[in-house]
Amino acid sequence: MSQTPQWFTEAHAPSGSSIGFAITGKLGEVRTAFQHIEVFATTDWGNLMVIDGCVMLTTRDNFLYHEMMSHPALYTHAAPRNVVIIGGGDCGTLREVLKHAEVERVVQCDIDEQVTRLAERFFPELCESNADPRAQLMFDDGIKLMADAAPDSLDLVIVDSTDPVGPAEGLFGARFYASCLRALKPGGLLVQQSESPLAHLDLIRTMRQHMHGAGFSATHTMPFPQPCYPTGWWSATVARKGAGDFGFREQAAASKPFATRYYNVDIHRAALAQPEFMRAAFAG
Amino acid sequence: MSQTPQWFTEAHAPSGSSIGFAITGKLGEVRTAFQHIEVFATTDWGNLMVIDGCVMLTTRDNFLYHEMMSHPALYTHAAPRNVVIIGGGDCGTLREVLKHAEVERVVQCDIDEQVTRLAERFFPELCESNADPRAQLMFDDGIKLMADAAPDSLDLVIVDSTDPVGPAEGLFGARFYASCLRALKPGGLLVQQSESPLAHLDLIRTMRQHMHGAGFSATHTMPFPQPCYPTGWWSATVARKGAGDFGFREQAAASKPFATRYYNVDIHRAALAQPEFMRAAFAG
Repeated sequence: MSQTPQWFTEAHAPSGSSIGFAITGKLGEVRTAFQHIEVFATTDWGNLMVIDGCVMLTTRDNFLYHEMMSHPALYTHAAPRNVVIIGGGDCGTLREVLKHAEVERVVQCDIDEQVTRLAERFFPELCESNADPRAQLMFDDGIKLMADAAPDSLDLVIVDSTDPVGPAEGLFGARFYASCLRALKPGGLLVQQSESPLAHLDLIRTMRQHMHGAGFSATHTMPFPQPCYPTGWWSATVARKGAGDFGFREQAAASKPFATRYYNVDIHRAALAQPEFMRAAFAG
Repeated sequence: MSQTPQWFTEAHAPSGSSIGFAITGKLGEVRTAFQHIEVFATTDWGNLMVIDGCVMLTTRDNFLYHEMMSHPALYTHAAPRNVVIIGGGDCGTLREVLKHAEVERVVQCDIDEQVTRLAERFFPELCESNADPRAQLMFDDGIKLMADAAPDSLDLVIVDSTDPVGPAEGLFGARFYASCLRALKPGGLLVQQSESPLAHLDLIRTMRQHMHGAGFSATHTMPFPQPCYPTGWWSATVARKGAGDFGFREQAAASKPFATRYYNVDIHRAALAQPEFMRAAFAG
């Protein structure tokens, strides 16, 4: 670490904990109609994007989140062709989704265009597939997009949102899940970032209840490490429309024609393991 | 979180990151011949022990570390009877080890008695098995203990130490590993806390090389979440004396007669999964 007295620290009040990064300066800042977006240069984590004081991503560790928001679901679905990403304005999830050749179309719908504009400048590696002809970048309300989506039209909806306060709050509610269920084809999947297994267990339980209440037949919460988020431990929850097991196209995952840094077949299986306290929390 | 402006923050210079906890006061403090030990009360994490400015444990999340330092190795060894814990003065690992009925004797050797004295006061639940007749608490130099240990006398050595600076530095070296190898019976295991997979990958690689160099036949690094340590992601590295696979007494683990909060059969298997970047780092 270079000699610097400057730190960006996110104090996460609900968990009484904080995570900070040594920074060398502010690279960019925009106040939009929705939020306050900042980008800092760090000593050891590359660039750091912060929205309304909350760490969104760093250059160094975003691979964990983006790989786990995409590959497990894509290798679970039998034939993922039509994908929607709600949120995801940094385009990192989009990049991972587009690595799957069977995907024919991805609509990414983030409410705030400036997230993508800043990502293009400060996280260009995440935006390298934005010009893929299969990708469509929209800047609009994801809740409305899903409410208006044609029934039985999608294979996979990925909710890559901020925390359930502010603009993203509605993405964690029963009405949104009902829209997603309607828009998905039978066998379709919804996968959503679901906060920290340790700090937000009640939230995860409520999400799962809302998903089941909306008509999803099965849910599973996959924990993964994510140093830049509160507690350093995060999760994605996947829900399935229609009866049947989640499945795992293990052969396809084992012979994937693209590189990953975290995900592989063993990690996919590992993400399905539930710690005892999560089993107990979800058993009720 | 209650209204408090006070935080304890550990700035981890090697990774340019910090983790902090909202605190309500200092409960205890001792300066010993070896180190400076403090205990704080936190708003959301119970009590917090800090040694030389580094977070050692909190009431809320130590179960992750202590379970992963003990149960995977104990359910890997064919018949763990004779166990040594180097470090581990908070007695949390000892408590987990003693849950295994086949364990006949555990010597815990921490260099600093005051760690245990403070744990007895502020983490009494971790010390609840200290009076078990199978347990012997020593306060001495673990490096010397292992150098003097009878050859082929131990089934499992657990190195539950502070970081590889200060008193614990020698616990990460080739000479110490040679002592451990000599003291272990064939089929015996060494398991050691091995820092962060993301921040300390070079250290882990060097540890594994030293272990192999000392004559251990196989090593495996098991990642697990640990919110209170730098990057929130930690690991234990296990090494085996003698040829053969590590093995896993899965039936025994599935029917374990004691409760855990993180560990179970699926989590054991999950901890054996190696992220792609770790595979690549250890392949050389």
